[in-house]
Amino acid sequence: MHIEHPVVPSPVDQAFLARLADRFGAQCQTGQAVRDQHGQSEAHFAPMPPDAVVFARSTQDVVDLVDLCRGAQVPIIAYGAGTSIEGHTLAVRGGVTVDLSEMTRIVAVNAEDFDCTIEAGVRREELNLHLRDQGLFFPIDPGANATIGGMAATRASGTNAVRYGTMREAVLSLKVVTPDGKVVVTSRRARKSAAGYDLTHLFVGSEGTLGIITEVTLRLHPIPETISSAVCGFETLRGAVDTVVQAIQLGIPLARVEILDDMQMRAVNLWSKLDYPEVTTLFFEFHGSPAGVAEQVELVGELASANGGGDFRWSNLPEERAKLWKARHEAYYAAVNLRPNAVGWATDVCVPISRLPECIEETKKDLATASLPATILGHVGDGNFHVVFSLDPDSAEELAEVESINTRLVERALAMDGTCTGEHGIGLGKQPWLLRELGDDAVGMMRAVKLALDPDNLFNPGKIFAA
Amino acid sequence: MHIEHPVVPSPVDQAFLARLADRFGAQCQTGQAVRDQHGQSEAHFAPMPPDAVVFARSTQDVVDLVDLCRGAQVPIIAYGAGTSIEGHTLAVRGGVTVDLSEMTRIVAVNAEDFDCTIEAGVRREELNLHLRDQGLFFPIDPGANATIGGMAATRASGTNAVRYGTMREAVLSLKVVTPDGKVVVTSRRARKSAAGYDLTHLFVGSEGTLGIITEVTLRLHPIPETISSAVCGFETLRGAVDTVVQAIQLGIPLARVEILDDMQMRAVNLWSKLDYPEVTTLFFEFHGSPAGVAEQVELVGELASANGGGDFRWSNLPEERAKLWKARHEAYYAAVNLRPNAVGWATDVCVPISRLPECIEETKKDLATASLPATILGHVGDGNFHVVFSLDPDSAEELAEVESINTRLVERALAMDGTCTGEHGIGLGKQPWLLRELGDDAVGMMRAVKLALDPDNLFNPGKIFAA
Repeated sequence: MHIEHPVVPSPVDQAFLARLADRFGAQCQTGQAVRDQHGQSEAHFAPMPPDAVVFARSTQDVVDLVDLCRGAQVPIIAYGAGTSIEGHTLAVRGGVTVDLSEMTRIVAVNAEDFDCTIEAGVRREELNLHLRDQGLFFPIDPGANATIGGMAATRASGTNAVRYGTMREAVLSLKVVTPDGKVVVTSRRARKSAAGYDLTHLFVGSEGTLGIITEVTLRLHPIPETISSAVCGFETLRGAVDTVVQAIQLGIPLARVEILDDMQMRAVNLWSKLDYPEVTTLFFEFHGSPAGVAEQVELVGELASANGGGDFRWSNLPEERAKLWKARHEAYYAAVNLRPNAVGWATDVCVPISRLPECIEETKKDLATASLPATILGHVGDGNFHVVFSLDPDSAEELAEVESINTRLVERALAMDGTCTGEHGIGLGKQPWLLRELGDDAVGMMRAVKLALDPDNLFNPGKIFAA
Repeated sequence: MHIEHPVVPSPVDQAFLARLADRFGAQCQTGQAVRDQHGQSEAHFAPMPPDAVVFARSTQDVVDLVDLCRGAQVPIIAYGAGTSIEGHTLAVRGGVTVDLSEMTRIVAVNAEDFDCTIEAGVRREELNLHLRDQGLFFPIDPGANATIGGMAATRASGTNAVRYGTMREAVLSLKVVTPDGKVVVTSRRARKSAAGYDLTHLFVGSEGTLGIITEVTLRLHPIPETISSAVCGFETLRGAVDTVVQAIQLGIPLARVEILDDMQMRAVNLWSKLDYPEVTTLFFEFHGSPAGVAEQVELVGELASANGGGDFRWSNLPEERAKLWKARHEAYYAAVNLRPNAVGWATDVCVPISRLPECIEETKKDLATASLPATILGHVGDGNFHVVFSLDPDSAEELAEVESINTRLVERALAMDGTCTGEHGIGLGKQPWLLRELGDDAVGMMRAVKLALDPDNLFNPGKIFAA
């Protein structure tokens, strides 16, 4: 099921680069270091650098770049923070990477409407710093300090999705530059609309293949009156998963509930210099009124205790909470660095919650036979979990071994009516599985939409579907 | 801004009808009464009957019908309960109406995952009857007892959307028959996925123009422990709207909050034989734990009282609540019947909540000058409200007058960053406004998607975009 991505000769020539330099001056860079930086990913894929990188500062910059690229039939790849782990930003066919990380303007915060409009390069942590004084926050949190534009493009979610939804629920409207260089705003700011096709959701998760997002209008939430975090170790993996499934089925509005298996806890302790017991552990966060949080905590405590959970270790002060979640957020890097000089391969499935205990337990059994370190962690309240492998980049055997474990994992999830990716996206890594998950006709429909909107296949070519 | 819909000669001939009869037997009907019934709407549009009606009983029936229609280049219009009010089911170009109301199978209820899969013809009241014993409910409630397939196709919402979202949030996956006769399932049953373009949301709100929905997988919710309903009259329209806006801004999780103006209350009293004071009134519903509901009620009571609200009249027994909401659900029919032999014209806008008081107050002033009865009612917690006119169908003057009031209403909403339709959809009535709301380029993108997926323009032609 492995797809080869042959490197096609890039159509970029000196005349085209001169036109870019002419229009963009120092915003256009072609040095090897910048190209290399934009041509690598945080995962195991081979580097594929673009021919040039343009640092956009406005929607008009993106329009002009798209017009230049279309004129010369040059591919164009949108780039935010570069934190995706399915190879989304790799320049499979060369071309120009448009780096949106300098587009960091907060266009408007409408506190009374619980929404804001920001440029695509704003990162989620900076957005939350900006919002804090107004008593608001933006809940979607994929771990990495990603750009909001990138999070929209990949339909990101993360630790808070169990309570607040994913980028699918969070994005109210987008400003997008289309392959024909038009600027489209996909929706008005009203909280709901039945006006025509849902272009907003067509772009959320389209991975830069249909348009380049330059502004995002987001739903916001009031900062909860009470926030309380805790960790709890369990005797068994099954006990931890059952606790979460039972809490969800009781309708307890958990704000976050993360699982980290014993191996992942070992990695976290090493990486973040902590001293948690190295057993399967749940990280919880509770949001609400003081009484509401107390009620949730009591119910969850009873469930944990009945499922072999130990005592809750509480982190109620903001700095303690920050330390706890920083450890969780760095779990990927911690897992990769279980071996020196390793690269990461993070895979990601999501199943209906009732199937989660079985899916995660079978996966754990499968990992027990692996010859390299692998951890399980994830957003179990959604039925979503990850396996992270710490991979020797020079070992073809390890690559093949991981590929076959990953195959079994995705097949297991699909057999349970799950998806091959809960939140990482298709990118390069999950293309064969998209076909298996939804079938040729559904993917054919996606391809028809792609062809209709990007007939020259210049927007992030080779992603979602093979080139 | 009025769009003419010329009646194009239908391509249906006797040979085609014979093929339909051959395949579908008594499921295919061509009698005048059945055609007329499927060619009228609940609003002011002129009747446009199809050439034949096929009562589908399975997805395979729909596939075979689509294949026959495509072979003869005959339009095909999906029909559920016929309760849309923007002319969605009218056979603008003739053709075959596929009536899905006999597809009423409950395919699966996955109580532990809070989801279910049903055939498209299941109606929302029947679904909730079926779910009740399992402690679950499906919250989306547009008033009419619509089919779930129709509600998905029009992105319906209604009274509970303020708390539970719209069909956009409720639909997890769809089974769809495409214009080329393929059967596509748009998503797996996992609660989230980042696998490819969001086909589910492309079909939700596509009004039968991209595919025919035959099955729907829905998110469900646990029936709340406590449900409490109340009505409260206000001295002024502004006071009622301000109460809602303030409650939303305080984050009070109202399950329902509906406004009915003085004229609408008069209509409701007449139609439902009730004796409410004929002043602007809010209908509330609170869901939660006993303590949670008590807390919400106290906060909302304080807000209402500070804004000139009277006492709350409570309906806590199920039969009292049912009576209250039945009156609300029949408000459209009540408003239309303020005059004998009238037809209804219901229009619908939605604005950011902070602009709602101004929008609704200016609209009320505008209606004060109208020569015919008009009421205001709506889902004000979303910023969404309707105006219903009771129209003499034979009066060109009244039609022109309503058209001009509607123009001013939509322009007012658009100027406030609102939408021309919060929940009724585009259908025939809002086509010019879709262009004004999102612009030629965005609508051009929708047309490109339509052309890519339905190149022969046979699926509900003439809707969303003019024929």
